[in-house]
Amino acid sequence: MSRDPGASTPCRVAVVGGGIIGLAIAAELLCRGADVTVHDPAPAGTDGAWHVAAGMLAPGGESAFEYPHLTRLLEAGHELWPRFVAGLGDVGYDRAGTLSLALTADDVAEAAREWKHQRLTPLTGSQVRDLEPAISPRVRAGAFAAAEHQVDPRRIVAALRDRLRGRIVPRRIADLSELDAGGTPAATSTVAGRAGGGFDVIVVAAGHHTGALTGLPIRPVKGQVLRLRGDPGLLEHVIDGAADGRHVYLVPRADGEVVVGATQEERADRAPTAGGVHDLLRAALDLVPGLAEHELTEVAVGHRPGTPDNAPILGFLDDDRRIVVAAGHFRNGILLTPITARLVADLVLTGSADPILDAFAPGRFR
Amino acid sequence: MSRDPGASTPCRVAVVGGGIIGLAIAAELLCRGADVTVHDPAPAGTDGAWHVAAGMLAPGGESAFEYPHLTRLLEAGHELWPRFVAGLGDVGYDRAGTLSLALTADDVAEAAREWKHQRLTPLTGSQVRDLEPAISPRVRAGAFAAAEHQVDPRRIVAALRDRLRGRIVPRRIADLSELDAGGTPAATSTVAGRAGGGFDVIVVAAGHHTGALTGLPIRPVKGQVLRLRGDPGLLEHVIDGAADGRHVYLVPRADGEVVVGATQEERADRAPTAGGVHDLLRAALDLVPGLAEHELTEVAVGHRPGTPDNAPILGFLDDDRRIVVAAGHFRNGILLTPITARLVADLVLTGSADPILDAFAPGRFR
Repeated sequence: MSRDPGASTPCRVAVVGGGIIGLAIAAELLCRGADVTVHDPAPAGTDGAWHVAAGMLAPGGESAFEYPHLTRLLEAGHELWPRFVAGLGDVGYDRAGTLSLALTADDVAEAAREWKHQRLTPLTGSQVRDLEPAISPRVRAGAFAAAEHQVDPRRIVAALRDRLRGRIVPRRIADLSELDAGGTPAATSTVAGRAGGGFDVIVVAAGHHTGALTGLPIRPVKGQVLRLRGDPGLLEHVIDGAADGRHVYLVPRADGEVVVGATQEERADRAPTAGGVHDLLRAALDLVPGLAEHELTEVAVGHRPGTPDNAPILGFLDDDRRIVVAAGHFRNGILLTPITARLVADLVLTGSADPILDAFAPGRFR
Repeated sequence: MSRDPGASTPCRVAVVGGGIIGLAIAAELLCRGADVTVHDPAPAGTDGAWHVAAGMLAPGGESAFEYPHLTRLLEAGHELWPRFVAGLGDVGYDRAGTLSLALTADDVAEAAREWKHQRLTPLTGSQVRDLEPAISPRVRAGAFAAAEHQVDPRRIVAALRDRLRGRIVPRRIADLSELDAGGTPAATSTVAGRAGGGFDVIVVAAGHHTGALTGLPIRPVKGQVLRLRGDPGLLEHVIDGAADGRHVYLVPRADGEVVVGATQEERADRAPTAGGVHDLLRAALDLVPGLAEHELTEVAVGHRPGTPDNAPILGFLDDDRRIVVAAGHFRNGILLTPITARLVADLVLTGSADPILDAFAPGRFR
């Protein structure tokens, strides 16, 4: 290793990407004494996947079902949340739990498989309405997932930006060589190397833009998300439901906002569509008719960073260990933010990876 | 009469309200030699009913069905359109005609009554699709109304504002006495009266705000309207349809915009709702499934100026004939713009009303 965390010169790190992953990594590195700079074309922007994300913290999601390594990472990541939010102020972290709902008999048949896998007790429609009276009388069945929480990603990003004030540079990186991190291993760890603008390590956390910067197979997966607003208190729990084969989640914030998401489309455009918005509203109103009177305050489009196996890419890009990738979190970016920050900071500062990361190394796609 | 159109001093007129009605009246008065000023709190604003209006020019609409005097006014007004638009440049005046559609058997039963009343020939579903291939195969029947045209109200307002440049004053009138039009009849027609800020006539064309200014029973009737955008050419005709009991119109512009309207709610708030947007999208997609891929570019709310009999209020407010009301056009404000401008200008400049206005005098509500 060319880096020595015990040396008097702190490790100099460039983070490419000021979304929730990049900011959380940078904040963790700063906290541990690194000299960190975040490079983002719009440091106050709202372009990232975090901006539309609802912030469901559901380690038992469907992708976990198919992929045991990811399940382990999601569960380990979930446990870090209480400590992660402790230092951030009020970021809407709410542990009321999630109600999974199934509207029709077909929806019940499909949901029952997942409830069984997650060891959740099925509830009848009326048991569901005892927990959450606003649920439609048409809803046939449900299950309560007490461990599935929520947080407000916009508040987390605001808190992290605040913590990193002065360290976020408004700069679009089109090629990593612009950061002058290359050269021989010997050069980059010296003071001379740093004075020349070089960084000891570059962390690429640029969401779906990471593909163009690294050659890794990360693609944008379009999601349309709505925000409604009404009197607080209509819903207490997160709702994760299926309505006539259409999946929708409803995430109620304490202030009366309800996030309704999300479409999943293999497209890169930023246009909300008549069909996408209709499908979300139909499913939401099928499950919770009282939302009809809520104001529609926002129609937004974001892009999840998707990978071929739907799992994130976390680790050194190549053998000289100067470029770390932390991207491709797909639908789990918010949940995996604290564990990504911790494990990537370890990697940057010690040069060695926690074994839990083995399954997520960039090398699996090269 | 205290006013003499032949005198050397032009008639000095204040128009209160810079929406499409107020602007059209002012432009007509200006053209005929009057000294006109339009008073509006936001001369470049988008608050008026015209801003969300689709611009369907349909004299055979449902309100006409119930009210013969209104039918006569709508039909007379319809005939003025070719000349009205001739001087305005390209304002999207399009005479392709309107296709009335009925989705279900119940929708057909209800629509058939109106088609009969309007003497339209019913068409089968496949005849409808011959005229407009994008119509859903589920649509059971329709009728073609060749005389129902469309125009773009936003372009008309832009053209009228241009024509009235320098004569639109950014001013909110809370009470008509602020315009200093009162006093004795003798005073208002003298140069001294004009120099003192007085006007010979005040025209109140303030939409649903007219109620507060005049004491007339004009109330806001909320309408939610969407704008979609896609490749031009999906639809050629205006669509005026019923889908499972829900009425919707689709107005395709030449540039690919499609206006989807409108809810009708006895409310004054400005919030688009989840239920309103859902209902419009559902009906639109039921009739024209190909709209699903169109971008949702705008969700807007406007307020029609409603009256107790759904007919406009046009005429002198009281006996001293200094205040003219031109408001309460409800759903027919765009169609009635040219005839309102002509008849109100006649009234202002000659002091006597065309007999067609008898049924619309303010006195019927006093």
